[in-house]
Amino acid sequence: MRRELRSNDVAVRINYCGVCHSDLHQTRNDWHNTVFPCVPGHEIVGEVTDVGSAVTKFKPGELVAIGCLVDSCLKCPRCEKGMEQFCEEYPTPTYNGRDRLTGELTNGGYSETIVSREEFVLRLPEGLDPERAGPLLCAGITTWSPLRHWNAGPGKRVAIAGLGGLGHMAVKLAVALGANVTVITTSPAKVADAIALGAHEVLVSTDADAMAKAKNRFDILIDTIPVSHDVTPYLSLTALEGAMVIVGAIDMLPAIHTGSLLMGRKTLAGSIIGGIAETQELLDFCAAKGVLPDCETIAIQDINQAFERMERSDVKYRFVIDMSTLAD
Amino acid sequence: MRRELRSNDVAVRINYCGVCHSDLHQTRNDWHNTVFPCVPGHEIVGEVTDVGSAVTKFKPGELVAIGCLVDSCLKCPRCEKGMEQFCEEYPTPTYNGRDRLTGELTNGGYSETIVSREEFVLRLPEGLDPERAGPLLCAGITTWSPLRHWNAGPGKRVAIAGLGGLGHMAVKLAVALGANVTVITTSPAKVADAIALGAHEVLVSTDADAMAKAKNRFDILIDTIPVSHDVTPYLSLTALEGAMVIVGAIDMLPAIHTGSLLMGRKTLAGSIIGGIAETQELLDFCAAKGVLPDCETIAIQDINQAFERMERSDVKYRFVIDMSTLAD
Repeated sequence: MRRELRSNDVAVRINYCGVCHSDLHQTRNDWHNTVFPCVPGHEIVGEVTDVGSAVTKFKPGELVAIGCLVDSCLKCPRCEKGMEQFCEEYPTPTYNGRDRLTGELTNGGYSETIVSREEFVLRLPEGLDPERAGPLLCAGITTWSPLRHWNAGPGKRVAIAGLGGLGHMAVKLAVALGANVTVITTSPAKVADAIALGAHEVLVSTDADAMAKAKNRFDILIDTIPVSHDVTPYLSLTALEGAMVIVGAIDMLPAIHTGSLLMGRKTLAGSIIGGIAETQELLDFCAAKGVLPDCETIAIQDINQAFERMERSDVKYRFVIDMSTLAD
Repeated sequence: MRRELRSNDVAVRINYCGVCHSDLHQTRNDWHNTVFPCVPGHEIVGEVTDVGSAVTKFKPGELVAIGCLVDSCLKCPRCEKGMEQFCEEYPTPTYNGRDRLTGELTNGGYSETIVSREEFVLRLPEGLDPERAGPLLCAGITTWSPLRHWNAGPGKRVAIAGLGGLGHMAVKLAVALGANVTVITTSPAKVADAIALGAHEVLVSTDADAMAKAKNRFDILIDTIPVSHDVTPYLSLTALEGAMVIVGAIDMLPAIHTGSLLMGRKTLAGSIIGGIAETQELLDFCAAKGVLPDCETIAIQDINQAFERMERSDVKYRFVIDMSTLAD
């Protein structure tokens, strides 16, 4: 067990944990802030094994999920609005964070067990496959939150730029929300994949004619491209009063001309993960609609190989670790 | 008269015309697109002298106004939504444009008369001083449109960056809409002016402590600064899910870090003038609330001196030409 249970703690035996690109960055100290030893993993699915004395929402035996956050102040206006990811006192990340009471390092889901305070534990709804639900906790909510915020749904044209872990979830969720969905990709080789995921159309961004024809077309454009890039061509695809939302690149955004925003009253925005209630809403939606990420299950012994394949984009579209292999 | 009246034309004798920074740019060919001889002016107030056979909205003797546009297709989805400024076939600017039927050069309001099709002529409501109403047609609508679009009003914290022709209108309009209004200026010398215009607070952007204290504070930040500048400090002042709207600088926006948008799900947007119905709404609002720009009336003979003073920002806050001086 991670710690003696506090009154509001839930102890979880981990069954599955998704592999996020952040895990790779953090274990390699790409962000120069990793505290070692580091246990990554924030797409956690497991079973409650024990609960603290004051816990009312969960009991042993129930299937639950834990995402990117395990705590926040829960008192500031942002937390009160259900946006714990933007907590004014900063939320506690599931790993490589500091426990708010003891200052101890937090550790993630590449592990047998985890303990989190009750408010940050999610119910795994019936009908949602535990083996594939994990990636909803990061890749899923990161795209769900802006899709919901900018009202993706019937009658809306949604474009998804980039087709990796985030992009493939964005396609599935936007389709399930009833939007008309176009994937924008640099790679003609991904056209068939995009259609297989449910996209209605595919726009190959190297095709200048097709890009010109799609000008001012999309009400919402979710940009999942993970590296710094010029957003001007994508802003030109965004409709009058449309929103282009960056969820992929945490990096410098090269200079753009303000005319790209002024002409058509366009919005360039950013979004990052989501709040706890919103994440529960996503899990419930996915259970109801049968939406699940495309996953490849691996043994924990294969994690380094999986990291290497992720770096080559050789995964469709998310690895999930079967944590029972820790015993092998 | 500018042209033989078409059936849907309104002929106007011009009483007053505001002097916009665009007039200066256009007459000096700063945008490399000026067709000479050029008659600038798109903040026009005057009296109807004649109407075409099919005109129903106006009759001779009525006070009217004409702004930045004199025509558009009026058929595309954008025009149908009342956003003629974003007409898919491009609207016809009041000057330095081309008439949609004849291709003739359009000429603006530094003139005795103008002719426009009925749909682009606005009613000057009773109680709105004709001598000061002109600047509402450009400086006014350019700030009114984003204030309305992003719901400025009671309970909203609005910041106005820059205190020139646009900024001073933004302050007056946001205050009249019931918002809590802060002016952001580089210049401590402008604090008293901002308060005199009705601002509730002033933030001097060179005061690092004050800027740090105002972090995440404003629901809407209207950026009227007319030159290219780093928006990062302003994005940091924008609240959770707040919007920073550029209306001043039609120029390159220097590189920013996407974290400025991602952290707090912030919006960076642009907006430019407004639609016809929205402009009428503004005129009616200003008449009802007694909102008028601060103007300095000049004779047409003083226009070059006025341009020079505008370049030195030596105007509070807008020049208006008394067109009767053309006869002097």
